[in-house]
Amino acid sequence: MNGPEIERLIQLLGRLPGLGPRSARRVALHLLKKREVLMQPLSAALADAARAIRPCPTCGNLDTIAPCSICADPRRDAGLLCVVEDIGDLWAMERGRIFSGLYHVLGGTLSALDGIGPDELNIGSLLRRVKEGPVREVIVATNATVDGQTTAHYLAERLADCGVPVTRLAHGVPVGGELDWLDDGTLATALKARRAL
Amino acid sequence: MNGPEIERLIQLLGRLPGLGPRSARRVALHLLKKREVLMQPLSAALADAARAIRPCPTCGNLDTIAPCSICADPRRDAGLLCVVEDIGDLWAMERGRIFSGLYHVLGGTLSALDGIGPDELNIGSLLRRVKEGPVREVIVATNATVDGQTTAHYLAERLADCGVPVTRLAHGVPVGGELDWLDDGTLATALKARRAL
Repeated sequence: MNGPEIERLIQLLGRLPGLGPRSARRVALHLLKKREVLMQPLSAALADAARAIRPCPTCGNLDTIAPCSICADPRRDAGLLCVVEDIGDLWAMERGRIFSGLYHVLGGTLSALDGIGPDELNIGSLLRRVKEGPVREVIVATNATVDGQTTAHYLAERLADCGVPVTRLAHGVPVGGELDWLDDGTLATALKARRAL
Repeated sequence: MNGPEIERLIQLLGRLPGLGPRSARRVALHLLKKREVLMQPLSAALADAARAIRPCPTCGNLDTIAPCSICADPRRDAGLLCVVEDIGDLWAMERGRIFSGLYHVLGGTLSALDGIGPDELNIGSLLRRVKEGPVREVIVATNATVDGQTTAHYLAERLADCGVPVTRLAHGVPVGGELDWLDDGTLATALKARRAL
C-alpha cells in the first residue's frame, strides 16, 4: 500500500537487530520526515562505511586501513595479545581504555549446537601470531558464558605448546555490585578467587 | 577509536527513534558484518526513498506519485474524508483495510505546551477540501489523547459552517480486551456509549 520504495525500506530496517516490523515502520516514517538532516546523511554514511571499512588481516578488527589503526599503532604493546570473541567485545575493551596491547578477534565461539568448530574461528591465525610474533602473554577475554568458557579452555590447550603464558579475565563480583543480587555461580567463583586485602 | 566512518554511522543510527548509543553500536556492527546482503541494500533503499518519496499535495500522505496512490484511486469513495494526526496513523488505518475513503493528514495536533497552533497544521487545506470537494462526511480519527481530543473539538468547530457531518471514532472497550485491565476513563466512556444488543 505504501509504494515499493517504502515497503523495501521497512523490510530492510526490520532486519536490523532489535527492530521488529512495527519499530521498522516507525523508523522509516521518522527517516522520511527528516529527509535532509537524517535520511540522506545516513544513506551516505552507510555507503561510505560499506566502501571504506574492511577487516584487518592481522587481528580481524574493522577499520579503513589495513592493518588496522590498533595493529599499526607503535605505542601499543605487541607483547600482550587479547583474544576476544567479537569486534563488539574489542570495542568494549577499547571504550574502557584499559588495555594497551593488541587484539585477536575469533569471530565467535566454539558451539556444538550451532555446529561451529575450531576451523570456523580465527584460531589458526592466532596460533601463527603467537608462534611467530613477539607475544609474551595471551589474555583470553571470551565471554563468561558456557560457549565462551569452552572456547577459552580449548585455546589454552592449543596454545600450551607455544611456551607463552595464557591468562583469562578474572571472574567475581562486578564493581558496584551487591552480593544480594548476585547469582550463586558468580558468588562461589568470587569466594574461591578471594585475594589478600 | 573506530575511525570516522564508523563513528559517524553510529552517531546517525543513534538518532533513530528507539535506538540509543549502545544499540546503535550493535546495529552498526551487524551492518558491517552483513555488508553485501544488508548494508549496501539499505543504503540504496534509503537513497531511493529519499529521492522518490514526496508528500501528496492533497492529503499529506507520502508516496512516489503526486497525488498519492490513495487520492488517485478512482475506486475509493471521495465522499468520506478521514482526518488523521500523522502518516503513521494513515498507515495503521490502511493496514486494517477497513476504510475505503480518502485521508487528510494534519501533521500533528494542537498543543499549547509545544506551541503548535492551527497555523502549524494542515487545517486550511482541510477546510478547502471540505468546502470545494464532494465530501459527505468528515471522520476525525485523531488519537484519544488530550491533544488529539482538543484537536478533534477544534476541527468540529471549524467545520461546522461547511454543512458536512463531522464524526469521530468510537471510544470503548478494545476488541479482545478485558474489563479488569481497562482504565476507568475508557470503562466510563464505554458505559456511557452503550448500545442495544
